[in-house]
Amino acid sequence: MLKIYGDVNSGNCYKIKLLAEQLQLDYQWLDVDILAGESHTAEFLSKNPNGKIPLVEFADGRVLAESNAILCYLAEGSDLLPNDIWQRAQILQWLFFEQYSHEPNIATSRYIMRYLGNPASHQQKLAERREPGYNALKVMEKQLSQHEYLAGAEYSIADIALYAYTHVAEEGGFSLARFPAIQQWLARLAAQPNHVTIG
Amino acid sequence: MLKIYGDVNSGNCYKIKLLAEQLQLDYQWLDVDILAGESHTAEFLSKNPNGKIPLVEFADGRVLAESNAILCYLAEGSDLLPNDIWQRAQILQWLFFEQYSHEPNIATSRYIMRYLGNPASHQQKLAERREPGYNALKVMEKQLSQHEYLAGAEYSIADIALYAYTHVAEEGGFSLARFPAIQQWLARLAAQPNHVTIG
Repeated sequence: MLKIYGDVNSGNCYKIKLLAEQLQLDYQWLDVDILAGESHTAEFLSKNPNGKIPLVEFADGRVLAESNAILCYLAEGSDLLPNDIWQRAQILQWLFFEQYSHEPNIATSRYIMRYLGNPASHQQKLAERREPGYNALKVMEKQLSQHEYLAGAEYSIADIALYAYTHVAEEGGFSLARFPAIQQWLARLAAQPNHVTIG
Repeated sequence: MLKIYGDVNSGNCYKIKLLAEQLQLDYQWLDVDILAGESHTAEFLSKNPNGKIPLVEFADGRVLAESNAILCYLAEGSDLLPNDIWQRAQILQWLFFEQYSHEPNIATSRYIMRYLGNPASHQQKLAERREPGYNALKVMEKQLSQHEYLAGAEYSIADIALYAYTHVAEEGGFSLARFPAIQQWLARLAAQPNHVTIG
């Protein structure tokens, strides 16, 4: 059976849980407590030398890291990752946007505010992430004001990847009030069959 | 003809140039000066609302952003992106590793030291990137001490993506002296047919 190593409150891990539920995959969830160092034990590092979660392990022992690479692999053959190479290119564009322009600003702000307790020592880091985080939301708003889903007319793993941290962006101090298309898209995502919440 | 919008000194842009040369694609290179604001003109933003390079534009007007999504699309059908889905998963894992764990530390350090002139105001940012940057190099070293290329036995776009900023890591203050497998891999990459240098 597929094993998913993760933290239920991490958006990157939640992506995999959401996809696995929507595809109705059989899986076992194994909690990894990063703050307790569980992603840096010798055993975990033998599976992922980068010491990060999520990580998936297949019955034959193969392992795969990087949340968005896992989404691509698990969604292969499903409607959430169409075969058309141009559609795939659009989806990948959004997946890389998520990891480079969205997650480092929006997820990191949430981490500082919610998990580190918003300490004075991190206020400059938080402030620096505000503008690029809102820029990422503006890019999404523009696309979602013209299309139902990020990669166009169809729901895909691009939506799952961006939903993960966007729907909890307010926990990182980002207001979604100015982004009506994002709000409608969030509601559309939450209404998908087999949707599960984070946490 | 394929248009590539980029900056010849940017590793993210160089990836696309290197791939285009190795695949012997016909293309037109269009210089975009980020520091002069050329990636934030109304015209450029109409092509890429995220205001980033590289960007490719096809003869029919379609555009694609995100360097690693562009690599995947352009390499489709070539030996640099095999069809096997597990091999693709490994390649994608390295591409996401590059954008999340490698580029923000190693490329950003190079940017601070080489392009911003290593100002006093940025020394803390530089210091914070040292350990995670070296960790990324350690992850590569481990893989390359066991395999010829990042995704295994065959040269792929994962190597092109990681080569871009690794071969100029010393410009960001990272010494490769402790990484013999990376050094051998860099030499192997530079010896590929139709290799071109950055800049």
